[in-house]
Amino acid sequence: MPKKGTLFVVTGPSGAGKGTVLKRVFSEMDGIYYSVSATTRAPREGETHGVEYLFITREEFLDLIKQDRLLEHAEYVGNFYGTPMDPVDAHLAAGEDVVLEIEIQGALNVKRKRPDAVLVFIAPPSYAELERRLRHRGTEDEATILRRTEAARRECANMDAFHYIVVNDTVDGAVHELKSIVTACRCRRENRGFVLE
Amino acid sequence: MPKKGTLFVVTGPSGAGKGTVLKRVFSEMDGIYYSVSATTRAPREGETHGVEYLFITREEFLDLIKQDRLLEHAEYVGNFYGTPMDPVDAHLAAGEDVVLEIEIQGALNVKRKRPDAVLVFIAPPSYAELERRLRHRGTEDEATILRRTEAARRECANMDAFHYIVVNDTVDGAVHELKSIVTACRCRRENRGFVLE
Repeated sequence: MPKKGTLFVVTGPSGAGKGTVLKRVFSEMDGIYYSVSATTRAPREGETHGVEYLFITREEFLDLIKQDRLLEHAEYVGNFYGTPMDPVDAHLAAGEDVVLEIEIQGALNVKRKRPDAVLVFIAPPSYAELERRLRHRGTEDEATILRRTEAARRECANMDAFHYIVVNDTVDGAVHELKSIVTACRCRRENRGFVLE
Repeated sequence: MPKKGTLFVVTGPSGAGKGTVLKRVFSEMDGIYYSVSATTRAPREGETHGVEYLFITREEFLDLIKQDRLLEHAEYVGNFYGTPMDPVDAHLAAGEDVVLEIEIQGALNVKRKRPDAVLVFIAPPSYAELERRLRHRGTEDEATILRRTEAARRECANMDAFHYIVVNDTVDGAVHELKSIVTACRCRRENRGFVLE
């Protein structure tokens, strides 16, 4: 009975603080593989193949779709984005946990393909606080902030499909909650691979 | 959508270290109620009603059985032991988590009555280590140690019915795991009672 890795799908609206929380969790826990998405868009200045994205051609992407080797994919402004299945499965088979940080529709698609995936929603404490955080970045204009707040409301309407809700009131609190969820999943009987001898 | 308490049933063979681990978890976490069992046996020197046990009469116990107000019960050497339902439900309704520390057959009975209970098995790292710990206590004679080791083997055969396995290799590690399980359960969407507004 070998140790079994868990597929975690982590989602949340822009401004909920997913990136900050995940970065801390990765630096404080071992045995987690962060899935890198594939895309057909061109790399931007400073982006490296295999770090921000796997930069592949449209033909390669369509091949992955045809062979059903993507956990989810979507098209934005003419470019494909998706999660290749093979690296995810390789790490799970090695007993590692895998984290996909993707948007909500993608998360729901993964849930259909992998019913044993654990879905975690990172929520802001309130819409008012979310808006405050989006404004605080200072890089967005008013129209963008309103559009993102509206998008967040739509995304949060799907919270019911998620197994766990992490409320990012303080980063420390949210990191503690997410780490606890990962640790607890490792203690599940079917994942633990423990045989008393 | 109010916050919902979880019923945790914590079990493990004698020598696995349940008591030590639970004591630490209670002292380090808020919002957990430790269920006190009822018994018909007479209090021993130094035992207080409501602390070690609720000491009740045989008539009162039989009444609880008749009214189906016990989560589980058993008879040992002529005395009844059981878990009264009312205090458990009162604390759950108040949004607190409740821990029952009971033996394995009782845990399986609670699971039948309360399918949403979370069952945690505290396991020693190995049978050899369990035997070493039982010997180390120094209070048991050889026959008792062998009887307990055998009982542990029988009890551990039921590990498959439990949701979580905490391996008590070090007390710190086991405390961390059990606290993570409790924290993760509080983050479950259906328990969290979180509404984004």
